[in-house]
Amino acid sequence: MPPTSYGTLYLIPVTLGDDHHEPVLPVDVVNIARRLENFVVENEKSARRFLGSIKTLRPVRELALSTLNEHTQDKDIPALLAPLLAGQDIGIMSEAGCPGIADPGAKLVALAHRRGIRVKPLVGPSSILLALIASGLDGQRFSFLGYLPAEKSARNQRLREIEKHSAKANETQIFIETPYRNQHLFDDILASCQPQTRLCVACNLTLESELIQTRTIAEWQKLTAPSLQKQPTVFLLLAS
Amino acid sequence: MPPTSYGTLYLIPVTLGDDHHEPVLPVDVVNIARRLENFVVENEKSARRFLGSIKTLRPVRELALSTLNEHTQDKDIPALLAPLLAGQDIGIMSEAGCPGIADPGAKLVALAHRRGIRVKPLVGPSSILLALIASGLDGQRFSFLGYLPAEKSARNQRLREIEKHSAKANETQIFIETPYRNQHLFDDILASCQPQTRLCVACNLTLESELIQTRTIAEWQKLTAPSLQKQPTVFLLLAS
Repeated sequence: MPPTSYGTLYLIPVTLGDDHHEPVLPVDVVNIARRLENFVVENEKSARRFLGSIKTLRPVRELALSTLNEHTQDKDIPALLAPLLAGQDIGIMSEAGCPGIADPGAKLVALAHRRGIRVKPLVGPSSILLALIASGLDGQRFSFLGYLPAEKSARNQRLREIEKHSAKANETQIFIETPYRNQHLFDDILASCQPQTRLCVACNLTLESELIQTRTIAEWQKLTAPSLQKQPTVFLLLAS
Repeated sequence: MPPTSYGTLYLIPVTLGDDHHEPVLPVDVVNIARRLENFVVENEKSARRFLGSIKTLRPVRELALSTLNEHTQDKDIPALLAPLLAGQDIGIMSEAGCPGIADPGAKLVALAHRRGIRVKPLVGPSSILLALIASGLDGQRFSFLGYLPAEKSARNQRLREIEKHSAKANETQIFIETPYRNQHLFDDILASCQPQTRLCVACNLTLESELIQTRTIAEWQKLTAPSLQKQPTVFLLLAS
């Protein structure tokens, strides 16, 4: 058991867009986030906006926010644990959704385990998980691959590998793209994959404009393409 | 767009154990589940207990529950869509956590997409996701593998393959076991894997007895093994 004099590292999920938190966060999660005074955040601006929206017990300007993002050097991460070692709790927050997936938060969590600090994950929205369950693609086995290569020919090569692996392992393949390149990725999938492969696009999850559709490549080719440009989108592919 | 005369298929997450729903379900999710009158459930007994606990608007005995589990034949699944085609909403529920992951619910969701029925995923607890974010293992890439082979030598062989793939792809490997075999699996991992490989065991997630620890194989070998027997546990492994 970790020394009881240490604080707890809470993994605080936040909303996926500018929506309200009631539809996507349990009351108890909001109450925990409200009383914390120390945060490690991926994006300070969005974190302050979220903390303002949940009405923290202390004014947001009095809370201690440290940044952990892709520019943070590994040597600077141990210092972020200081409040925990001094007995105070910390909340870690990603820019959107759950911390520690496709963001650098996992490094701080790993350090906490090494120091025997209690890590407490809280329930909230994850676009990857919501997309997976809503896709109807087999959730018995799945892989999240993060971003695919940005360069067109490397990406098409990778898409063919992904499709091959999906068919062989009967495994749903999940990937994302920076929103302004979504439409290119969608077009490349339609051009590179087999007609009977199933593709789900899950767009603007939890928002009013949510769109989730699963079709075969052959069916997508006959439809008017959905407008994915600049919309946060999760792509899921299952080949047979 | 789907015909507006169709109902919506809601994916209703439920608690992971006998805990209360307040810590793990958003209020709006509970309110949606409360007003539904048609359900497709993996386990009728646990579904009735959950519906009783959230105080459905109509008495639980008046709600229509159909079963979809591993014994359901594919030919019987299309009939489950009938209320949706007649304009009524359906809630689909797994025995624990989110529907459509490691349960047969995905087949109904896939059919709904084929018929142009709206699918709406709701936020709630997923032991796989909670384990992943709390493990501190790299969430940039991960695979969920479901169950490993039950037979010892096949399982040890599979563990070595998993470890090799994890190191090569820098990918966290997530898997589960039927709870009464957890201790055997844990012992086999310690015996089969490399000393520097990191292993997280995440046990009884969201419950009072929650235990989440990440250590290297070498460190686990020196510790008293945690008691995992008959406790729902997620195993996560990252090799380097």
